[in-house]
Amino acid sequence: MENIKTEKLNKAPHREEGLKIIPLGGMGEVGRNMTLFEYKRRILIVDMGFKMPGEDMPGIDFIIPNTSYLRGKERNILGVIFTHGHYDHIGAVPYLIEKLHYPPMFAGALSKAIILRRQEDFSHLKKLQIEEIKDGDKIRLGPFTVEFFKQNHNIPDTFGLFINSPVGNIVLNSDFKFDPDPVYDTPTNFNKLSNLARRGVTLLMADSTCAEEEGHSLSERTIMENLDKIFREAEGKIIAASFGSLINRIQQIISLSEKHKRTVAIDGYSLKTNVEICKKLGYIKAKKGTIIYPRSIGKIPDKKITFLCTGAQGEEQAVLMRIANKEYQHIEINPKDSVIFSSSVIPGNERTVQRLKDELYRQGAKVYHYKMMDIHASGHAYRDELKQLMEIFKPKFFIPMHGQFSMLYNHAELAKKVGIKPENVRVLENGEIANLSPRKMVIEKGKIASNYIMVDGLGIGDMGEVVLRDRQALANDGIFVIIAVVNAQTGKVIGSPDIISRGFIYLRKSKDLLAQTRKQTVTLINKTAGQNQSTNWTYVKDVLRNRLGDFLFQKTKKRPMILPVVIEV
Amino acid sequence: MENIKTEKLNKAPHREEGLKIIPLGGMGEVGRNMTLFEYKRRILIVDMGFKMPGEDMPGIDFIIPNTSYLRGKERNILGVIFTHGHYDHIGAVPYLIEKLHYPPMFAGALSKAIILRRQEDFSHLKKLQIEEIKDGDKIRLGPFTVEFFKQNHNIPDTFGLFINSPVGNIVLNSDFKFDPDPVYDTPTNFNKLSNLARRGVTLLMADSTCAEEEGHSLSERTIMENLDKIFREAEGKIIAASFGSLINRIQQIISLSEKHKRTVAIDGYSLKTNVEICKKLGYIKAKKGTIIYPRSIGKIPDKKITFLCTGAQGEEQAVLMRIANKEYQHIEINPKDSVIFSSSVIPGNERTVQRLKDELYRQGAKVYHYKMMDIHASGHAYRDELKQLMEIFKPKFFIPMHGQFSMLYNHAELAKKVGIKPENVRVLENGEIANLSPRKMVIEKGKIASNYIMVDGLGIGDMGEVVLRDRQALANDGIFVIIAVVNAQTGKVIGSPDIISRGFIYLRKSKDLLAQTRKQTVTLINKTAGQNQSTNWTYVKDVLRNRLGDFLFQKTKKRPMILPVVIEV
Repeated sequence: MENIKTEKLNKAPHREEGLKIIPLGGMGEVGRNMTLFEYKRRILIVDMGFKMPGEDMPGIDFIIPNTSYLRGKERNILGVIFTHGHYDHIGAVPYLIEKLHYPPMFAGALSKAIILRRQEDFSHLKKLQIEEIKDGDKIRLGPFTVEFFKQNHNIPDTFGLFINSPVGNIVLNSDFKFDPDPVYDTPTNFNKLSNLARRGVTLLMADSTCAEEEGHSLSERTIMENLDKIFREAEGKIIAASFGSLINRIQQIISLSEKHKRTVAIDGYSLKTNVEICKKLGYIKAKKGTIIYPRSIGKIPDKKITFLCTGAQGEEQAVLMRIANKEYQHIEINPKDSVIFSSSVIPGNERTVQRLKDELYRQGAKVYHYKMMDIHASGHAYRDELKQLMEIFKPKFFIPMHGQFSMLYNHAELAKKVGIKPENVRVLENGEIANLSPRKMVIEKGKIASNYIMVDGLGIGDMGEVVLRDRQALANDGIFVIIAVVNAQTGKVIGSPDIISRGFIYLRKSKDLLAQTRKQTVTLINKTAGQNQSTNWTYVKDVLRNRLGDFLFQKTKKRPMILPVVIEV
Repeated sequence: MENIKTEKLNKAPHREEGLKIIPLGGMGEVGRNMTLFEYKRRILIVDMGFKMPGEDMPGIDFIIPNTSYLRGKERNILGVIFTHGHYDHIGAVPYLIEKLHYPPMFAGALSKAIILRRQEDFSHLKKLQIEEIKDGDKIRLGPFTVEFFKQNHNIPDTFGLFINSPVGNIVLNSDFKFDPDPVYDTPTNFNKLSNLARRGVTLLMADSTCAEEEGHSLSERTIMENLDKIFREAEGKIIAASFGSLINRIQQIISLSEKHKRTVAIDGYSLKTNVEICKKLGYIKAKKGTIIYPRSIGKIPDKKITFLCTGAQGEEQAVLMRIANKEYQHIEINPKDSVIFSSSVIPGNERTVQRLKDELYRQGAKVYHYKMMDIHASGHAYRDELKQLMEIFKPKFFIPMHGQFSMLYNHAELAKKVGIKPENVRVLENGEIANLSPRKMVIEKGKIASNYIMVDGLGIGDMGEVVLRDRQALANDGIFVIIAVVNAQTGKVIGSPDIISRGFIYLRKSKDLLAQTRKQTVTLINKTAGQNQSTNWTYVKDVLRNRLGDFLFQKTKKRPMILPVVIEV
């Protein structure tokens, strides 16, 4: 599989002969993974993910990498390689790929299918061409030769990259775990890794998500055994909530259902979509008749049903929450039912998940959660596995990737303990440039733009800060609009000002306060505007904003956003 | 210590002779603990706490119990007993005590001091009278005799209550842990508990906070040893962040500092206040010269400094966050400093704490967190201890208290396993009434009001739902106010409508959209209002709201709150 870009490259003067490694995302954060490898102005991109916003970003849909560094360099992009099909690695494609002038793309069969399926939701975009790669494949892209080697994760078609470059071999090991005993998957091929290692590794970059977790991640075999126990003991329906992206877990639930003579109904957009894709590709296997429609559930005894659904994070609109709220038509909780939360809780969702669990308990369900029992394993390597990876590849240089700063830091410290020279271990932040040559790696001075780009409805941009700050202010104390009509001749207020307020206080119970505020407004305008024809209304409005703000704060200890409107007639 | 209320009681007809147990808070939630015991209309209150709001309640300060059940019964209140001085047990006092007509109050010395100190912040309230109680004290309150027995927790003066009532003995065991080897505290006196148990226990109520945690809570001795290790190895300053309420932990840090020849500077309002109170009462001991002012830090070598501060939860205005943001004047992080997070993370704060940790790592600090090392122990009993408590008291009936529903449920299941008859174990929800007689306990039909009462600035009430919903809507998509001036005679718009929008989109970059919206508004009003003199402006505004809403959604995929204002002149 050859793919050599031969376009004429931008001829700007260029001195360094080193290889630049530039993370645009995924450093100091979980998600939004995207890394550039640039050699003599030719650029290889690995992954293009998004991340979910925190509570401090109300209304924001996703956060994607800032690709302004690539502006004007679109023709120099050799290709984009996807390590696997999770949204933190592929999710930004629809928002960025057009901007980057549709460079060549490379992905495993499943990742390719997921990217293409998602692209359909963006009807204004071109259909994508993605070259399919598989374990052992090798592609040449300009000065780089990239070999793909299979790693275990919780989605099939996850690959590590062995990148041969003019400055040496680079191993980019994105999300992975060593699972000696996986379910429906082959175990890690350590021989293969050792063979690659024998060719010498200049730089290793690896996933740090669980770099603060001691020991070895749980094997999917253990999870399988525990789930099997739940299936054995279940007396009613089994409702298993998981992520659409945990393909291996989905297969486990389906296979256990077949073993225990249960049919499986599936609902939830991401789950249904992924199961459909995976069944087509053969990554999920189910016997004929195992999978039924949710609407058929009523016809089957509870003991014969597994219901696989989204909502393990307590997402408001997901199926499990709708079941708990009795808003889902095909299922209700009966006292003998079992509910399995087979996924970890994303930080920030703890309260919502707790409330959901409570509601399910209230309705009489037996609830199984990964904190009570090993029914979820991380897809990410723990410290022992990270150590082992470094011992296998014995790299000269090491850069931890994918994780909060504390994770990168602790991964870097681990690398030093394993024996990599401390000066050769560098924690890189988004937008920093590591310049690698065979004998040294330096961090260049200065950073490129790598701030959050927010997807907010149809808008994409980095101009959101004012808007976000306003949203937070509105959320805390609400808004207070006061509208006064003023006689343009006299500068005097006509009638009583209108007040519109939302999210501040309960207006119906605050009539006195509103009356006082109206009165104050009239007095302030009449006094400040005077009879002068050339009234400075900006000044009057400032006075209104400040004085009414103080007044309302004194009365309520709240600071709503105050918007005075003066209309001259 | 006698305190018998002799006021004439309300003579309404009354049939049940049972004892009513009514939780107003703390059931199905963590915090807001308050329980009523009512016998023949005479009411004993235990605790009066608040809880902190979730992210779904922007702008709310605290949530307190609904005491409307007590309205008109103020004279029947025999007294309020406080089990210990944590805010989830005492925090609602300033908001409720006046409403309840200042009933008699009973608390340990430390709890009393904390309640009184807080009351000073509410200058409009009367000074409180609180009777001080200590281990072994017995008070008579109408039909109840209450004996106080010491339990270990993470704040001194924590008491369990042995309540003798006409229907039998009740043990109310609020927050506690069994610590065989506590630091600066006496271990659990099991003899004493057994002696109480020998008198026969009809009902046990106990804390469920850690009813889902297997095993035994960590001893403070273990924590002490691990902290000692950190102190031994620290090369620079030690910055220890904790809660003002973790009095025993504060003592540990002070004592370890003395052992390792460090002075201790303390900052953060709740910490300073509590240390001051505890020193006065002898609950915190420090040698002369150990505690210094934060402003003196600069004069002392880093190796000789411990800085004890608030902010372990990543609170925005707390000292640790200000240090991380380089906004705190007395301290900056040097690469050899150690930062200790000696508290658990409250669910919902994980992201913020992670960001704070990241920033401290970035500045070069060595960060110690309870997930990496046992440097924080819960103050709450784990399952083994909860089991032990039940085995000691051998109650006939059991009601789990304090905790999310899942915790209450699992505590109740544990009680059944221990051997309490399943029909005698009841999970009670807030506002439900358990009616206890010597031989049976039934849950009465119907619930009393127990919904959230929110403290929002100076406002206290339960009318907040509309306001809260508005705040959430504002937070997600912002607000869009459009103001049109209309000629009252013709019904036609004069000039161009004004638009005020916040938190929606970035207006400066959306001039086209705004112009289109203005034009639509004019067209809609002119068409809908017609030339009819008796225009229904409510209808016109509804049309504007819906049509502009659809238009903006189509253009932006956002749904701001739309407020049309029509001014007739």
